Amino acid sequence: MTTPPLFPDEPAGIHVATAIPGPKSEELRVRHARVQDARTVHFYQDATRSRGNYIVDVDGNTILDLYGHIACVPLGYNHPALLDAWRGGRFDWAAGYRPALGIAPPAEWVGIVDGALSRVAPKGLTQLVTVTTGAEAVENAIKTAFVRLARKRREGAAPSAEDLRLTMLNRQPHTNDMKVISFEGGFHGRSLGSLSATRSKAIHKLDFPAFEWPVVAFPANRFPLTENLEYNNEIEARSLASVRDLLDADPQIAALIIEPIQGEGGDRHASAAFFCELRRISAERQVTFIVDEVQTGAGGTGRFWAHEGWDLPEPPDIVTFSKKMQLGGYYFRPELFPAEPWRIFNTFLGDPIRGAQLEVIIEVMERDDLIGNVARTGDLLVRELSGLQARYPGLFSQARGVGTYAAIDARDPATRDAIVRGLQQLGVEAGGSGDRSIRFRPALVFEARHVHEAIDRFHHVARGLSGQPASAGMGA
Amino acid sequence: MTTPPLFPDEPAGIHVATAIPGPKSEELRVRHARVQDARTVHFYQDATRSRGNYIVDVDGNTILDLYGHIACVPLGYNHPALLDAWRGGRFDWAAGYRPALGIAPPAEWVGIVDGALSRVAPKGLTQLVTVTTGAEAVENAIKTAFVRLARKRREGAAPSAEDLRLTMLNRQPHTNDMKVISFEGGFHGRSLGSLSATRSKAIHKLDFPAFEWPVVAFPANRFPLTENLEYNNEIEARSLASVRDLLDADPQIAALIIEPIQGEGGDRHASAAFFCELRRISAERQVTFIVDEVQTGAGGTGRFWAHEGWDLPEPPDIVTFSKKMQLGGYYFRPELFPAEPWRIFNTFLGDPIRGAQLEVIIEVMERDDLIGNVARTGDLLVRELSGLQARYPGLFSQARGVGTYAAIDARDPATRDAIVRGLQQLGVEAGGSGDRSIRFRPALVFEARHVHEAIDRFHHVARGLSGQPASAGMGA
Repeated sequence: MTTPPLFPDEPAGIHVATAIPGPKSEELRVRHARVQDARTVHFYQDATRSRGNYIVDVDGNTILDLYGHIACVPLGYNHPALLDAWRGGRFDWAAGYRPALGIAPPAEWVGIVDGALSRVAPKGLTQLVTVTTGAEAVENAIKTAFVRLARKRREGAAPSAEDLRLTMLNRQPHTNDMKVISFEGGFHGRSLGSLSATRSKAIHKLDFPAFEWPVVAFPANRFPLTENLEYNNEIEARSLASVRDLLDADPQIAALIIEPIQGEGGDRHASAAFFCELRRISAERQVTFIVDEVQTGAGGTGRFWAHEGWDLPEPPDIVTFSKKMQLGGYYFRPELFPAEPWRIFNTFLGDPIRGAQLEVIIEVMERDDLIGNVARTGDLLVRELSGLQARYPGLFSQARGVGTYAAIDARDPATRDAIVRGLQQLGVEAGGSGDRSIRFRPALVFEARHVHEAIDRFHHVARGLSGQPASAGMGA
Repeated sequence: MTTPPLFPDEPAGIHVATAIPGPKSEELRVRHARVQDARTVHFYQDATRSRGNYIVDVDGNTILDLYGHIACVPLGYNHPALLDAWRGGRFDWAAGYRPALGIAPPAEWVGIVDGALSRVAPKGLTQLVTVTTGAEAVENAIKTAFVRLARKRREGAAPSAEDLRLTMLNRQPHTNDMKVISFEGGFHGRSLGSLSATRSKAIHKLDFPAFEWPVVAFPANRFPLTENLEYNNEIEARSLASVRDLLDADPQIAALIIEPIQGEGGDRHASAAFFCELRRISAERQVTFIVDEVQTGAGGTGRFWAHEGWDLPEPPDIVTFSKKMQLGGYYFRPELFPAEPWRIFNTFLGDPIRGAQLEVIIEVMERDDLIGNVARTGDLLVRELSGLQARYPGLFSQARGVGTYAAIDARDPATRDAIVRGLQQLGVEAGGSGDRSIRFRPALVFEARHVHEAIDRFHHVARGLSGQPASAGMGA
């Protein structure tokens, strides 16, 4: 009756040997801090001993990983298929230099984009730009939207000589006031273009010049959904009305960018109906609809792309990715393909090593039905989180999730920080999200036994905290 | 008397088997174009058969590489030290997942940044941020300058609640009008922040919103320098006066960014005295002086960093890098270290595989004195280019270079394109720069025999073109 584990030879479970971070981590932090900012580091990882869902740190602690390096680990640590491919020579063609993929790509690159990367393309989005990070993906996605709007405005005519002259002075007419709508709480990256669409936290944006683009309330649904239907419907209607008003008032809005579930913003969800209506509104006005799947993409929601769960009236115009995909990029509809070459271009245009690893990752996802696993494990996880909040109603609320892309809220920010810190000492790596949420971003090989092990530690921490006032300022 | 070649077992020389690109490249282009923009591709490379300074393409042509994937190839193709490290297991710790280097870096990462990356740090710039590309490096470098200016303006006080509220609306007071000065012809990247400092060509900027930052004339020196002293001095004085005027008029200028030699802008040089005066002016006014060494860094000018040739009165505030360094990043002075964590941050913060390869690259550069080789080969190369222009004065001019970072101008843009195309057919991969320059960006293992082989092909193309009117519109 028992099926074999998806990840062979994982550690038997959590093992805590020292405080976390332990003394060896702190020694490394001192060395690291001589050169780089090491204040954000949770601990230093023993990369080769980590396995499956378990991080081994340099102090010998075996830590269950719910956070996945901010959602970047699809197959867990050191999956045999990845190591076998590496050691067996499958990536050797990429070992001897780093190419400019737009100038002289290796033949193997064509196989990757025409093969695995096309197999997982969102329906209707047959074109692909590869870059290296999520921020770069978003920057180029919105550039693609600007090219589309400008082409429409010029009605096919070439730009005038005066336009080109002013372009070089950063004063091209009808251009600096083109805009992207984003949503309160949204996170799209930290380069100055993507950061102008990011609305997560002031610390991300403070002191950086921004384009004066409009922001719309994100209709953060309340959970459980069945008990909050009226509230949720109302805030979604209000948000949609704001979008309609903005689009009607300003022909310079080129794009609308949104995450399927807000990650940094606190794991905030909206309904499929809301996204369908956004798609309808933007299509009607030829405003580019960008679904930012940097954090949700590649299986964590129990579908390859989270937007597949919406049953959209037509595909998004652009879908961005990074993180679990190992490199950045975006898929887009062929009608957005720029008429001129070199408009969307940079030196590296991705990384063949990361692309080659992604090919293996996709093969394993297909072979082992990892997306099916995520859907099943996610159901269990959200049920267990609901049980947790039922047991500690003063401590937890808003259990929610799609697949294993799940979260639960703590009473307040200080309590959340205390819980994350408490979990860490029990050998569970968790991450905050928003001001009071704890987010789950495990690998796609996260199974029932890992859910139970994690929830057990949550109960342990909750017993310690419940009824007691939260201690302030623990930091996360 | 003969010293062994720096790169063992290179091909004996150029071998042209087909038109370039050949039929197999064109077949691959058709497949590639189903998914990605393949219009910019010169040809498809046989990654494993390429060696040293020679690209082998999929049609079996052996091509002498002067362009180095836009200056990204430090050791040539498939250097034995890189392949041995790869196959010998030295990088295996990085094989099993891609980490978030700011959250739980592998212990080996500390060794890389504290070791090789610190050994090559520009003098006085002890702090390091790693990212993945040159554009990301520039984005974060200018963000660091904005943080510095804002801190100075607030005189250490915390931002007000109203400041934070307006920040989330992209309307933080005294912030959207902070500026970066850049130079006509400068190239700093294509994300919207870095692109606002980029002033290379209209096609790079057209239809993209830009921050209205000021631009100053770059004093493109005329060559030979001894015959153009008066002209060069005068344009440098004028450019410096413009910088002074801007800085005196506007306290919101946070930074000044400049390339040591303009790459995309047409291989334009200025004198060491000019850069020294820029450093002096910016230090006096506490404006952050950013030297963008994305293209010049890592040895191509016969020094590790091009700015080492200027004898600056004090170090730059920030030096950005990417390309030959295999990942992006910047070194900076410790006084620019942000007081708060998380201000300069992103998910990946670089790539450990590329960092591990860079460590090997730096070791080989040290062991084989590749920088000494570049200085010696560069002298020969520029001499040979001067000879070429003396032989064909109607065709070539402005032979120039520092190390092997060299260039020569063609009579006009169409002639330049015809020369690049002609060289390609003779098995030489060259690249344009600006509107009429041909740039040299060979690997650091480029030696005298490669110079002679390249110059021989230039003579061949020149004989075919000289006296004849250039044919128009060949494309490059």
